[in-house]
Amino acid sequence: MVDGIKTITVVGLGVIGGSYAMALTKAGYEVYGVDKDEDTLAKALAKGAVAASNVDCREFFAVSDLIVMALYPDMIAEYLADNVEYIKDGAIITDVAGLKSHFVETIESVLPEGVHFVFAHPMAGREKKGFDFADDKVFRGANFIITPTENTDAKAMQKVELLAKEIGFGQIKLTSPKAHDDIIAYTSQLPHALAVALINSDSEDSETGKFIGDSYRDLTRIANINEKLWSQLFINNKQNLIGKIDEFQVQLELIKKCVQECDFDGLEKLFVKAGIRRNNLQK
Amino acid sequence: MVDGIKTITVVGLGVIGGSYAMALTKAGYEVYGVDKDEDTLAKALAKGAVAASNVDCREFFAVSDLIVMALYPDMIAEYLADNVEYIKDGAIITDVAGLKSHFVETIESVLPEGVHFVFAHPMAGREKKGFDFADDKVFRGANFIITPTENTDAKAMQKVELLAKEIGFGQIKLTSPKAHDDIIAYTSQLPHALAVALINSDSEDSETGKFIGDSYRDLTRIANINEKLWSQLFINNKQNLIGKIDEFQVQLELIKKCVQECDFDGLEKLFVKAGIRRNNLQK
Repeated sequence: MVDGIKTITVVGLGVIGGSYAMALTKAGYEVYGVDKDEDTLAKALAKGAVAASNVDCREFFAVSDLIVMALYPDMIAEYLADNVEYIKDGAIITDVAGLKSHFVETIESVLPEGVHFVFAHPMAGREKKGFDFADDKVFRGANFIITPTENTDAKAMQKVELLAKEIGFGQIKLTSPKAHDDIIAYTSQLPHALAVALINSDSEDSETGKFIGDSYRDLTRIANINEKLWSQLFINNKQNLIGKIDEFQVQLELIKKCVQECDFDGLEKLFVKAGIRRNNLQK
Repeated sequence: MVDGIKTITVVGLGVIGGSYAMALTKAGYEVYGVDKDEDTLAKALAKGAVAASNVDCREFFAVSDLIVMALYPDMIAEYLADNVEYIKDGAIITDVAGLKSHFVETIESVLPEGVHFVFAHPMAGREKKGFDFADDKVFRGANFIITPTENTDAKAMQKVELLAKEIGFGQIKLTSPKAHDDIIAYTSQLPHALAVALINSDSEDSETGKFIGDSYRDLTRIANINEKLWSQLFINNKQNLIGKIDEFQVQLELIKKCVQECDFDGLEKLFVKAGIRRNNLQK
């Protein structure tokens, strides 16, 4: 267990918050769960994911060394502003949001002196939403990104890093909120856009399911998307995402042109390049 | 075991042919393997995938009730033309090619009376090529497509269906070569094009590997592509594939437009549609 952290509150027991609660409880922490949904609170308690749960965070915040804000990104600042007076002095707060630049300043502006926010993006998830799909094993070996700002406390950040390692994350990478949002537009948002566009371009009269292999299944798995969360992530990262879609479209046009012109050599070169890049990725 | 089939020759012990050989041997057939590569022949024999192996097919063809042509699609007709005189009367031939219309007539034109070709497309594969990655388990539950022509013998087709079920395939679907090539352009070739374009649109200076989650891994797995095979499949299915890329591009543009215009409602609608389609696919 990480030095100085005993009690943790997870706000938002959806698929990610729920997974955090489970993993942290397993790691030996006293974990409290907050959610607006009573059923979710009861489930989390029954499953042993949390030691106590409540729709109200105040009592939990007063005794927590760490708070995990597992809410939609646009709700974090407001929630903290409403409850900032209950947070214990010296507490660390972290989040799980898939987007940073757009929210970082507003969140930092509501924090009192002596409370340290460490912005983090656990690169793990599930296609399904809600506590029912929470699973502490999703973090195993996954990438964990921390986006420090000029206000980030070094010791608090170190503790969040240790905690991430403790619950199973693999590589931990530090980068700026701006750089994070740029690369995430490519590695996370663009794949989701492609999956959605792929499945939406199906002609519905065909018996598609009988003609698919693993490739189609793999590429469309994430088309089962949380529409509220992902429309926020896409639109709040507009410039970066549009740029990545543009770059993708250029590459798809290259393939199309080779096919159109029956250019076997050109197509093979594009395939070889892709194969090399995919192999390098695995290293 | 299927009535009337005891001895089977697999021509081409790559990843798919090798998997067939293993699965058929396990199912109790006497399986012979043919490949131009001596190392591959030795490996297949050592691994027990085949009872005998040879670079030359003649002795095997003379005694085989079934021949599996697991070569690149454009090599099948020529190979058969060169060896047609050795094929046993009444034998059944099947293939594994991912494309049909372009090859069906030529192949049928070289067949002698009394030899029955059943065109099939097992929707199972591996990202890697070669016998080393062969695995009889890849067929389990996978889709198996048969594309009968006006010359296809009903009894021979029934035997190939039974055999497919026996080695683990799930749904078997009959369709025309033309319809096959159209839907395969969408369910198989388009996903491969997207995976290649996605990985090729990466800016190489970034440490992409540290910022990826399962979505990027899933979407790029098939970017590790057999360049010779897939350039054939793409270009020989040009009209269909270009059509599917066009339809995909329309859908991607819809997403891009919603992002550009900060249209949350529009984007949510596209996501909901995709989620419903993905769920229906699983049923």
